[in-house]
Amino acid sequence: MRAAILAVGSELLGTDRLDTNSLTLAAVLERHGVELATKAVVGDSEAAIAGELSRLLALVELVLVTGGLGPTADDVTRAAAARALGRPVREAPEVLAGIREKFAAHGMRMPEVNRRQAEVVEGAELIDNLRGTAPGMRLEADGSTLFLFPGVPAELAAMIDSDLEPWLAARSSGAGRERGFLKVAGLPESMVEERIAPAYDELGREAISVLAKPGEILLQFWAHGDRDARRERLAAIKSRLAELVGPAVFTDDPETDLAAVVGGLLRERGRTLATAESCTGGWLGERITAVPGSSDYYPGGVVVYSNRLKESLLGVPAELLAEHGAVSEAVARAMAGAVRRRLGADYGLAITGVAGPGGGSDEKPVGTVHLALAGPVEAGAKERVAHRRVRFPGDRERVRWLSTQLALEMLRRELLAGPAETGRGEEDAGAAAAPSVREAPVAAGGGGR
Amino acid sequence: MRAAILAVGSELLGTDRLDTNSLTLAAVLERHGVELATKAVVGDSEAAIAGELSRLLALVELVLVTGGLGPTADDVTRAAAARALGRPVREAPEVLAGIREKFAAHGMRMPEVNRRQAEVVEGAELIDNLRGTAPGMRLEADGSTLFLFPGVPAELAAMIDSDLEPWLAARSSGAGRERGFLKVAGLPESMVEERIAPAYDELGREAISVLAKPGEILLQFWAHGDRDARRERLAAIKSRLAELVGPAVFTDDPETDLAAVVGGLLRERGRTLATAESCTGGWLGERITAVPGSSDYYPGGVVVYSNRLKESLLGVPAELLAEHGAVSEAVARAMAGAVRRRLGADYGLAITGVAGPGGGSDEKPVGTVHLALAGPVEAGAKERVAHRRVRFPGDRERVRWLSTQLALEMLRRELLAGPAETGRGEEDAGAAAAPSVREAPVAAGGGGR
Repeated sequence: MRAAILAVGSELLGTDRLDTNSLTLAAVLERHGVELATKAVVGDSEAAIAGELSRLLALVELVLVTGGLGPTADDVTRAAAARALGRPVREAPEVLAGIREKFAAHGMRMPEVNRRQAEVVEGAELIDNLRGTAPGMRLEADGSTLFLFPGVPAELAAMIDSDLEPWLAARSSGAGRERGFLKVAGLPESMVEERIAPAYDELGREAISVLAKPGEILLQFWAHGDRDARRERLAAIKSRLAELVGPAVFTDDPETDLAAVVGGLLRERGRTLATAESCTGGWLGERITAVPGSSDYYPGGVVVYSNRLKESLLGVPAELLAEHGAVSEAVARAMAGAVRRRLGADYGLAITGVAGPGGGSDEKPVGTVHLALAGPVEAGAKERVAHRRVRFPGDRERVRWLSTQLALEMLRRELLAGPAETGRGEEDAGAAAAPSVREAPVAAGGGGR
Repeated sequence: MRAAILAVGSELLGTDRLDTNSLTLAAVLERHGVELATKAVVGDSEAAIAGELSRLLALVELVLVTGGLGPTADDVTRAAAARALGRPVREAPEVLAGIREKFAAHGMRMPEVNRRQAEVVEGAELIDNLRGTAPGMRLEADGSTLFLFPGVPAELAAMIDSDLEPWLAARSSGAGRERGFLKVAGLPESMVEERIAPAYDELGREAISVLAKPGEILLQFWAHGDRDARRERLAAIKSRLAELVGPAVFTDDPETDLAAVVGGLLRERGRTLATAESCTGGWLGERITAVPGSSDYYPGGVVVYSNRLKESLLGVPAELLAEHGAVSEAVARAMAGAVRRRLGADYGLAITGVAGPGGGSDEKPVGTVHLALAGPVEAGAKERVAHRRVRFPGDRERVRWLSTQLALEMLRRELLAGPAETGRGEEDAGAAAAPSVREAPVAAGGGGR
């Protein structure tokens, strides 16, 4: 079975509001193995709605409409459905009585405008509205089914539970569709594509999708069938993809941020982290502390935006700043080491860069960022400091975000006890944080650790 | 002229993502007086996209498509447009060369998959992609115009500026609808409503809308007519609303963050700021440094997440922490004063609170936050420290966000040289940061300065 969703409402064609009801409906369809073929939005025009209904009923077997069942003059979904199906609309006395009763129960008389909500398309099965006045409707037409729902999310949710879910369950034989995820950091989209290419052949291209986000890639994959079969298949796909992509996979939970994964590793290994931020101004600390319980491994950090504070809070030598500039390998290394020692943590993670839009030069163009990771220091050993130099594409926000992302990824790889992947030598430093090949490619220089 | 928007991408038919690009495009259309008739979403299917294009080109004069121009196998918008228009697709050597150059400029070879992005529908005007690799296209077909844009928001935005806006400007008669804005901090929605009530009567209720966001209120207002008439009317509405709301208005630019306004005031007055953050973990510094040029007035700050760092980095006495706890007026005041003095700034701004979900107690429930603002110290005078205690509603992210918002608003009011509005006495401390009366009301105690 294939479905379409139509949202009715001129406000959904404006500049502020999106049809969020469609996400709720998409989740219901997915649970029951119904493919969502398309969704559309039209304004409060009877002709436009009727036109869309005719088109969609010819296209798919199930059409879900939200909105336009209210009491005002611009609520015309009932009339439009009648026109599309070539059937009359009639006032249903029992519906009218029900609406009057709902008002009476609150000690109110029914406003005359609400009378419209008692109009019913001929042949409709009515769906009780437990949270409002207008009933929903289910209509059969030429082998397709049409549901009319209110646009108010709470009223829609109640009708999904009382009517749509049971209707779908009765038709879907328990076979549904389920989704799995993997999140990948440190690789550009094209390289992820290259690595998972064998899985396309083995599992089918439509079973897997690659979604590039800034600084990370979300792999989604689907399995059909009954519950046990699809769970088993999801596990198999996940393990195959994880094997192909390698350690750049950092979680299988789409809601989990890289900072939470790094935090979990720090806690597991009993390590602590301090941060020294220049161009990111506190964003790295913000991401780390967005995770509940981060005080277990994160005592804090410093934001050394000025050179003066790099000297006074971290003891970065003035000569180093004068000779190399604040955005340099030497300063990044000094910041990481100093914050680790001065704040008394196992690791020190430092970021200094040119976030733009101003401040760039030929030698250090906007997007140039130096990152350094100091520690841990084992008994009797010298402090190690890893360093990377990258050049990120994009605007100030993007450069700052990608800087925090790469800093976290450097630490994650260190905690996994292997050096960062260096498949492409120097290029990898940039590639490691490139959000997507759809964006400007990322240059990189500097060495690994 | 009427327009339609088609978003391409199977991920937009899932359960997580909505076509937010359509809001950006709707705003552009609105500015040029073009009616948006409908919008639709289809997956990455060449047949489905081609079908929608044929339908929409017959329905309206302007069709705007986003997505499906990437390098992967599921990016099929180019092929679908060619099919809908009955034209061939050809690889354009100059486009291919341009893509190769973009990679080469960053020392990378072009992955072979990106070759797809050099394919061009016959007859297309190409639109340069300043932020990525795939060009956009403009196509004329039977009196309608079709634009193909990338789905990446930054790439789309650049093409709107460079191409769609000028194209629309050349075709619209100049009569359109235009919107003005005011942003308000420190007042709950209901109080803003109360204050602007006279404007509803004077200007019409439909001319003004009130949108509550976390920690701030966005006022929107509209004017119709030709350019000069609507600009004049917008200015009149804006000035009337600003008069009614008072100093809680902080900007008339919807994109301007409170941190940028505070930064502008600091720069104007030649003052500097240092921050000391506990529960916000760096978010306040992040917001301040998100503003280009913030190094003029922000040397930096400290993230003192642990008590140990509150002592060692700021010299907060251990006895104070033991006696009052880290989340207390005494500690907030000590943090603000110490960060001001130790980092050598005019102002010191401190936040310490219980962000949750854990860590709450009967005495200090989740959402309890203490804020303090120290300075400036005039010659021979004693250091003043203002303090507020609030209890914010919501989850960890909300509590942390509202904390940074109120901290900035405290500083803005100080810089405006008046104490914070205290129309409602003690309640105001909470009200000042309450995002909306739809949320749990905010308790408050503590004094002003």
